[in-house]
Amino acid sequence: MKVSKLYAPTLKESPSDADVLSYQMLVRAGMIRKLSSGTYSYLPLGYRVIRKIEQIVREEMDAIDSQESLLPILLPAELWKESGRWEKFGPEMFRLKDRNTREYCLGPTHEEAFTDLIKNELSSYKQLPLSIYQIQNKYRDEIRPRFGLIRGKEFIMKDAYTFDRDEASLKESYAKMWEAYDRVFERCGLKVMVAEGDSGAMGGSASHEFIAFSEVGETRLVFCPACDYASTDESAVVKLAYAIEEDAMEVEKVHTPKVTTIEDLEKFFKIEGHRFAKSLVYKVLDTIVVAMIPGNRNVNEIKLINHLGVAEHDMQLASDDDIKSVLGSIPGFVGPMLSEEVLTNDKVRLLVDSRITQIPNLIVGANERDYHLKGVQYGRDFTGEVVEDLLMVEEHDVCPTCGKPLAIDYGNEVGNIFQLGDKYSRSLHATFLDENGKENYFVMGSYGIGISRTLAAIVDQHSNDRGIVWPDSVTPYGVMVTVVNTKDAAQAELGESIYTLLKDEGIDVLLDDRKMAAGKKFADADLFGIPYRITVGRKAKEGIVEVKDRHLDEMVDVDVQDVVALIKSKLQ
Amino acid sequence: MKVSKLYAPTLKESPSDADVLSYQMLVRAGMIRKLSSGTYSYLPLGYRVIRKIEQIVREEMDAIDSQESLLPILLPAELWKESGRWEKFGPEMFRLKDRNTREYCLGPTHEEAFTDLIKNELSSYKQLPLSIYQIQNKYRDEIRPRFGLIRGKEFIMKDAYTFDRDEASLKESYAKMWEAYDRVFERCGLKVMVAEGDSGAMGGSASHEFIAFSEVGETRLVFCPACDYASTDESAVVKLAYAIEEDAMEVEKVHTPKVTTIEDLEKFFKIEGHRFAKSLVYKVLDTIVVAMIPGNRNVNEIKLINHLGVAEHDMQLASDDDIKSVLGSIPGFVGPMLSEEVLTNDKVRLLVDSRITQIPNLIVGANERDYHLKGVQYGRDFTGEVVEDLLMVEEHDVCPTCGKPLAIDYGNEVGNIFQLGDKYSRSLHATFLDENGKENYFVMGSYGIGISRTLAAIVDQHSNDRGIVWPDSVTPYGVMVTVVNTKDAAQAELGESIYTLLKDEGIDVLLDDRKMAAGKKFADADLFGIPYRITVGRKAKEGIVEVKDRHLDEMVDVDVQDVVALIKSKLQ
Repeated sequence: MKVSKLYAPTLKESPSDADVLSYQMLVRAGMIRKLSSGTYSYLPLGYRVIRKIEQIVREEMDAIDSQESLLPILLPAELWKESGRWEKFGPEMFRLKDRNTREYCLGPTHEEAFTDLIKNELSSYKQLPLSIYQIQNKYRDEIRPRFGLIRGKEFIMKDAYTFDRDEASLKESYAKMWEAYDRVFERCGLKVMVAEGDSGAMGGSASHEFIAFSEVGETRLVFCPACDYASTDESAVVKLAYAIEEDAMEVEKVHTPKVTTIEDLEKFFKIEGHRFAKSLVYKVLDTIVVAMIPGNRNVNEIKLINHLGVAEHDMQLASDDDIKSVLGSIPGFVGPMLSEEVLTNDKVRLLVDSRITQIPNLIVGANERDYHLKGVQYGRDFTGEVVEDLLMVEEHDVCPTCGKPLAIDYGNEVGNIFQLGDKYSRSLHATFLDENGKENYFVMGSYGIGISRTLAAIVDQHSNDRGIVWPDSVTPYGVMVTVVNTKDAAQAELGESIYTLLKDEGIDVLLDDRKMAAGKKFADADLFGIPYRITVGRKAKEGIVEVKDRHLDEMVDVDVQDVVALIKSKLQ
Repeated sequence: MKVSKLYAPTLKESPSDADVLSYQMLVRAGMIRKLSSGTYSYLPLGYRVIRKIEQIVREEMDAIDSQESLLPILLPAELWKESGRWEKFGPEMFRLKDRNTREYCLGPTHEEAFTDLIKNELSSYKQLPLSIYQIQNKYRDEIRPRFGLIRGKEFIMKDAYTFDRDEASLKESYAKMWEAYDRVFERCGLKVMVAEGDSGAMGGSASHEFIAFSEVGETRLVFCPACDYASTDESAVVKLAYAIEEDAMEVEKVHTPKVTTIEDLEKFFKIEGHRFAKSLVYKVLDTIVVAMIPGNRNVNEIKLINHLGVAEHDMQLASDDDIKSVLGSIPGFVGPMLSEEVLTNDKVRLLVDSRITQIPNLIVGANERDYHLKGVQYGRDFTGEVVEDLLMVEEHDVCPTCGKPLAIDYGNEVGNIFQLGDKYSRSLHATFLDENGKENYFVMGSYGIGISRTLAAIVDQHSNDRGIVWPDSVTPYGVMVTVVNTKDAAQAELGESIYTLLKDEGIDVLLDDRKMAAGKKFADADLFGIPYRITVGRKAKEGIVEVKDRHLDEMVDVDVQDVVALIKSKLQ
């Protein structure tokens, strides 16, 4: 392709709304453009990378006998009502009606649709296991689309589904998919960590997330440098226990004016943060939920949601009004010693993180402005619904596998794999007959790769301050030939002939034949991120060109005779 | 691929709702399934054909320097409001809102989106012409989805757009695209006719449709066997003129009880059908439109809509109530001699096809039950808005190019090309600077190929009563190896080894290794439509297999040594 014809409008400056590096780089390189909040257009260079990523995914799916298909994006509501997710998905699902007022959504994922597809047609154990996938746009009505391609309303996904006869066979399908994912991300040049995921919303038994490291990643990763444990912070089990030897005191009310934060309390009471019990108040559907945790920790809302068995959008922080009217308490001073009337109200639940029961002489809010209670004992002074673990993990918490301190890193989820079990086959009545003619529910798995996210993640890991440096496997073109001065006939001709030679070798090559200042052409070449550059300049007359390997940041003069062979060897 | 693993559930019988051959064949072959009215899932075999068609389109687009991109499906309403099509598209557009009540549609076409994409970034004449395309799902909320993939709510399209500096350059871009389309359809094995199209809704100056012949096609094609004229019936110009020498009579009211159809009138008045003037009454927005045409012809509603400059959904047949209350007439007896009050009502328009003015002594409805008027003269007794041509073409009408009689055929539109001019660049203010620094509107073209329709059209033209026979260019697999008796070790081994040899040659091959009756395997092979079949049966021991060429419907015994070479030569 000649750059004079290529539609790739580069920008000197990042757009003002570009909040992450990958988005800045892709926009500046003329590879993507935002159409509206959370929706993006892929321009020719950007789309070539998308197609290369898709092709890698396709090859690795085919290699594990997963079969490509394509299902509708427009999905009828009935399917989702059968599985119970029409309600559960909440406002994140784009919904619409046709002219006959029939309801649809734009598929955010396709468990129901694939289960419906194979239902009654995949009927014998002999046909199992089946692995099937598609590459397609997916839709989520994000409350705050951000980070460019990382969190959009419309994005490209590969989603695969497996149908097995039992759990043991599912585990094999799951392992094969995991290995395929490892190969996909490796071939894309991505460094990823596989973390235990939260499978709450999907309703399965186990799941893992493939997280591409990124300083600006939106996922907080917890991992153990000593063993192979890794998890998202949402899913990490917090192994924490207190063994505090102290005699129980009597409850005492203390006037604590202007003492509001945990730091204030630590100073005021001259005692460590975990000796306070923090009470967070949520409104969950029609119930008020009070969650008590050690004062120096944060609540993990996903654990809370999973414990309550509700959808994410069913839970919000309670309003000040609710705290006053339902709990009879004061915002900022909520504690567990509520009135009998409140404690017996079946629309109020008091959840207690198990650590709270291990701490003697707790300091808690007094449900009265500017007062706390000290000397409070779980069991003697109050009780609640004890939950093993409601805490968000922190750096240096102990590894649940080996007991060593955990470390924290950041990244973006580019893939996920779920063992679903029979949740969907059961709700949609999808069964097969086994050897004995007995009906069984399929045991399912579901597996996603964010294609557009992978593009962003690659840019994130493969950019320098001048632009992207594409891994050879996904680069839109392997080589860029830049003619420094197109008015110089020797340069123009040599550029053209190298371009033709490379094309004849089947190499994807760009020729910058534009009549403009060399500086602008070099800047664009940096932005485009093509890994190998051939600059045809003053030495063209002597048959010498400059070859730059951007991976190595290395530049060498090369005789024209040798240039094709050199490029070919580099592109191996 | 081994058929024992392939997900392709074949059916002995056509589904009850399969109203056309292509849909029946694709469903029976396990290639597509309906999810809901107008939406379809592509199963692995069907999707392989889709991808092969896409690849042919891609290669031909690339060959004319059109660049692939991908724009959102979810399009913001603002763009469509700017172009005026938010209203104009009417109920055919799927519309939805996000959680912030922002309005979107699911793109039915992308003129606005591409114009917006290049606006302000494609800024110089030096960058022109630009040709850019995408392959993507498109959406239309069809009132009656039918004919399987031919008329669905969701379908796969290639849509391309060109941006030129002037009309002359647009014509060159248009011609290149036309030639590329010819090559695409030829490579897909499709017989198509290129017909003049109606460009009303797109708002351009010229357009052509590529119609794949089909006995059950929904498009009625008019063509001239004597010259190269061809048109859709909607667009065909009706060249018809009357030269009737007859003295003008006086108007006379005639009692015509039980005389309602044109046939009744012909018998009653003993005169030919064109001597009557039929008055059709439409409600168009808030206006009543009466269209007068010769009694033995049909009105062409598209011509009427284009003449009125309204959208298709703005026009319906008027109700009996409207005919009575607005026209003061009687349904079935409407004629042009309406009351002065009605004729001067600016919400009533009387359109007269030009032929009506050439017919003396017309017989028309008397606006009174069971009465007609005869001896009515245009000009003397009534006048109206004369429109050159409001008629639907009929077989044997004269060719507008050469004057010979026209013929009729049927087909399905698989491609269309439009010269749009500056309709969209003007309404969206998209301009470039010419050599003199002067701002100009882009002159645009838009070009579609229905990928999923092409699939259906190929099946339509390449099936026999046993199943599909795919053209080699798009077949999901080139060869199918059927092992007649898998329990016979010689057969099983030979089948497997031929399969491996063909795979090693890079040939897409299916091996039917299923343990089931040979009859079922042969029936499936017919349904799958693989053009070349190798049957490994009793003669396996002697190293002989049977090769069937389904294009030629020819079967030969072949020595195993020669089978790979034979298949390779056939697949050339």
